[in-house]
Amino acid sequence: MKKEDCIFCKIAAGEIPSCTIYEDEDVRVILDLGPASKGHALILPKEHYDDVCSLDEGLAAKLLPLAARIGQAMKSSLGCAGFNLVQNNGRAAGQTVFHFHMHVIPRYEDGADIVSWTPGSPDSGELAQTAERIREALEKQ
Amino acid sequence: MKKEDCIFCKIAAGEIPSCTIYEDEDVRVILDLGPASKGHALILPKEHYDDVCSLDEGLAAKLLPLAARIGQAMKSSLGCAGFNLVQNNGRAAGQTVFHFHMHVIPRYEDGADIVSWTPGSPDSGELAQTAERIREALEKQ
Repeated sequence: MKKEDCIFCKIAAGEIPSCTIYEDEDVRVILDLGPASKGHALILPKEHYDDVCSLDEGLAAKLLPLAARIGQAMKSSLGCAGFNLVQNNGRAAGQTVFHFHMHVIPRYEDGADIVSWTPGSPDSGELAQTAERIREALEKQ
Repeated sequence: MKKEDCIFCKIAAGEIPSCTIYEDEDVRVILDLGPASKGHALILPKEHYDDVCSLDEGLAAKLLPLAARIGQAMKSSLGCAGFNLVQNNGRAAGQTVFHFHMHVIPRYEDGADIVSWTPGSPDSGELAQTAERIREALEKQ
């Protein structure tokens, strides 16, 4: 189902024009208008899903192989040295449009950092306890 | 195939101990020892693949649905407000261990940014030309 007020639904449906680099029955892949780097692309499902947790599982299975193909095409056509896949879920994670999308971001030699963090140093007891909580939640799914 | 000198091959095979939160015949999911946030996990294939482009396609199809399950389990067990999926390919993209891995990073309210960039502002002609180059490379694959 499309969602009436969702800009990515409208872009994916072709109702708002975009620079499309790939399209099939399930997805449209477009260039970001405010790119992190030259060629920065967004994979948009045509159906509306808020985030990766609500995504149809058959569609989810297609997206990582597709992202790999797009990254490979960026390397051969734009001369980037690598690429990041970034997919944000929830406002606290930096998601700003609540229609699932995956960023494919070409990275060039000496480009600015896009993903970075200060590594924490939890002790082994803390790690084991955190792992146990996540394992239990997975078992309950 | 495992690669003799690859630390993630050894961790995925259980030859080096780790805090494992999930394991099946194809993957092991562990907690990162230097986490960006509490619960930061890494999805590691048991077979060695350098990056997403070299990944077996059947395996690649499993990984996004698995990442969604793990993120959902983090939300229910750790109380995070969202999560990022991050997957780096190539040294220029911040990849430091050259065995494919996907980060699942829980995000809490008021946590520090992990992914950020200064948006570029290419004109429509430049975008159209970039899109055309990527499209052509995809068609040649």
